[in-house]
Amino acid sequence: MLSVLDLLRDLDSGRLTIQGIFDRVEEAIDRREKTVKAFAHLDLASAHKRSSNAVGGALAGLPFGVKDIIDTAEMPTEYGSPIWADWRPRADAPVVTLAKRAGAVVLGKTRTTELAHMHPTVTTNPHDPARTPGGSSSGSAAAVAAGMVPFAFGTQTAGSTIRPAAFCGIAGVKPSFRLLPTVGVKTFSWHLDTVGLFAPHVADCAFVLSAITGRALRVDTKNFGAPRIGFVRTHRWDEAEPEMRRALESVARRATARGATVVDVTLPSLFAEAADAHRIINDFEGAESLAWEYDTHGAALSPELRAVLDHGRHLDPTAYDAARSTAHAARRKFADAFEDVDVLLTPSAPGAAPEGLGSTGNPKFNALWTLLGVPCVNVPGLVDGSGLPLGVQIVAPFGKDRTALAAADWLERALARG
Amino acid sequence: MLSVLDLLRDLDSGRLTIQGIFDRVEEAIDRREKTVKAFAHLDLASAHKRSSNAVGGALAGLPFGVKDIIDTAEMPTEYGSPIWADWRPRADAPVVTLAKRAGAVVLGKTRTTELAHMHPTVTTNPHDPARTPGGSSSGSAAAVAAGMVPFAFGTQTAGSTIRPAAFCGIAGVKPSFRLLPTVGVKTFSWHLDTVGLFAPHVADCAFVLSAITGRALRVDTKNFGAPRIGFVRTHRWDEAEPEMRRALESVARRATARGATVVDVTLPSLFAEAADAHRIINDFEGAESLAWEYDTHGAALSPELRAVLDHGRHLDPTAYDAARSTAHAARRKFADAFEDVDVLLTPSAPGAAPEGLGSTGNPKFNALWTLLGVPCVNVPGLVDGSGLPLGVQIVAPFGKDRTALAAADWLERALARG
Repeated sequence: MLSVLDLLRDLDSGRLTIQGIFDRVEEAIDRREKTVKAFAHLDLASAHKRSSNAVGGALAGLPFGVKDIIDTAEMPTEYGSPIWADWRPRADAPVVTLAKRAGAVVLGKTRTTELAHMHPTVTTNPHDPARTPGGSSSGSAAAVAAGMVPFAFGTQTAGSTIRPAAFCGIAGVKPSFRLLPTVGVKTFSWHLDTVGLFAPHVADCAFVLSAITGRALRVDTKNFGAPRIGFVRTHRWDEAEPEMRRALESVARRATARGATVVDVTLPSLFAEAADAHRIINDFEGAESLAWEYDTHGAALSPELRAVLDHGRHLDPTAYDAARSTAHAARRKFADAFEDVDVLLTPSAPGAAPEGLGSTGNPKFNALWTLLGVPCVNVPGLVDGSGLPLGVQIVAPFGKDRTALAAADWLERALARG
Repeated sequence: MLSVLDLLRDLDSGRLTIQGIFDRVEEAIDRREKTVKAFAHLDLASAHKRSSNAVGGALAGLPFGVKDIIDTAEMPTEYGSPIWADWRPRADAPVVTLAKRAGAVVLGKTRTTELAHMHPTVTTNPHDPARTPGGSSSGSAAAVAAGMVPFAFGTQTAGSTIRPAAFCGIAGVKPSFRLLPTVGVKTFSWHLDTVGLFAPHVADCAFVLSAITGRALRVDTKNFGAPRIGFVRTHRWDEAEPEMRRALESVARRATARGATVVDVTLPSLFAEAADAHRIINDFEGAESLAWEYDTHGAALSPELRAVLDHGRHLDPTAYDAARSTAHAARRKFADAFEDVDVLLTPSAPGAAPEGLGSTGNPKFNALWTLLGVPCVNVPGLVDGSGLPLGVQIVAPFGKDRTALAAADWLERALARG
């Protein structure tokens, strides 16, 4: 993989040139893209040219991937739907402009599930082409994991960043709600849609986030020390696969052995209700957001998505209002979970990437955190018995993105040491 | 003017046909549009044709106007900026689709200030062509006031719906935040941008909102009785023009005489801080939302807007975070203002529409309520000494849109009785 921090360090020391980075990118694409199918649009030559002309910035010259529901001026943006075939936005989404300001260049648009919902795309898991890379940010996660790009933007409305990061064995961050603007991103649910980021390691994600937002989010500049961790099994713990449950217990033990404090944290039943509220908000807002697609191109929607929009369209507005009230109450109550701990530790997904490409897996371990709008970071490094990546995530209070990133980075390093 | 409820009543009773409505629309456009300049795009013939083919719905066959920062598939959407000349979205924004579902048809795109900010457009006030109609939803307010359309969509980020409604002497509603989806609407500030609605009378607005949202928001079906009103002068009362101050005092007396309870309500200083926080959030988010325009077409932005984006770009993220915390605290505290009253009464603008077309007036009496995300309704019917409209607004707690509309409707009727 192409670690952002490693590349920049090597560029800085003169061991590597922009040409060298593009040689590696080209080599990885030549070798992997035919099977992985991460890109909907790709323009290596013009990225290379723009990169060579880049004049400084924290991400000077680095190519990046952009999920194909995020607008780009220089490439089509097709939302993973035939309804939007050949669509060309006039403007870049702000996240793209902000990355360009930092010196990075768009390498390509990465494949997304249909309109960032559940209906899969053709992308395969770089660890096993017979398995899903997760979704909806399938191509972004796979492109990073296959070493084709050092970082890529994704989005998460339920589990679309953390789950594919877990399945592909890379770092993924879903920052606090609206830390990265969703302007220029195809909307599904305006209270849930969140722009996220993928990179090989947690410290890479933190560096890119810092460069884009101008906030102090780097974790590679000092030692933050061992965090106080709350181990949250959630009310769906029984639905995690045995190997995931064992992995979590083992992570807790290893973190303790490395000096972290790990205590059990149980969330009150309000948070189970909040997880249910997610679906109501998602479906109600999705039905409004995609009203034009539904009314004018209904036959071009997948049956899965149509069913969700039908459900959303027939929800009573009072049920939606009640779901929002539940979400609001849960957001306020969430601070209580952090009385004795800095961050929470919980599964990123029910298990490793499931077999087959007909589903991108289940977001049941993600929807609650997305609803709460709190930062989540997938910690890479664990594998199951057959060598497939297993992901665990670190969750922090709203606005504590650096706390989440620092703890996740600490944990990634602790796990790497065995 | 073309009252929605009057038109529908006359259609229903057979006194009027769709042809008759379009005759009136055409007559008003022929007579007024040359001076008022409300429309950026107008297609009377195709609206008439679609209207004649409309098959039922609460708004069956009614033409409407759409502010030109709201996407339409059938007409250009140019955001009031040369950067977006000839831009053609592929999809309708959800609010447009929802109005079409209710049977209404797009008559035209109404003129907006540059990117819905302060730099004015060419629209004039239907009451005096030497005066501003207000902005940024200049064309929507003017088109309704000139009788060219029965209702129109606008937006409000500071005062862009309530102020033009006041200056043009019509009803305007800025609903609770995100009651109407902002999807497909050009973003300036994602925490502030709100889709609003204009119509001749408050009951017209309530009817259209109800038809679009499927919520029980009509106020023409029963008598809601006299409201308990809190008279809020705000911390900027001294900056209201003497005639506006006198008008408000007189409204309070007349409401009392008609059976309303009117008490003074003073908001704590937190709300003055919140009004200041509005600018920080507005400018910070505007600078991110319009990053592409700034970086790639900076010379095509007005100097006013460039200055705002420069300010926003150089704000420290911690100042932005602090402003959001202040806003959050004020939203929670706002419930206290309604201990003894149902709604608040406060100026819609400092006075009547100012002379000249170089400015759209000042949103100083609007920004706080937009920041709070609470429903606001401009009550039409008052005039100043020279016959120009003066607007007062009714404000209610978040989610109490019907309470706001019912009280505003009551007040509009009370004022009409003298």
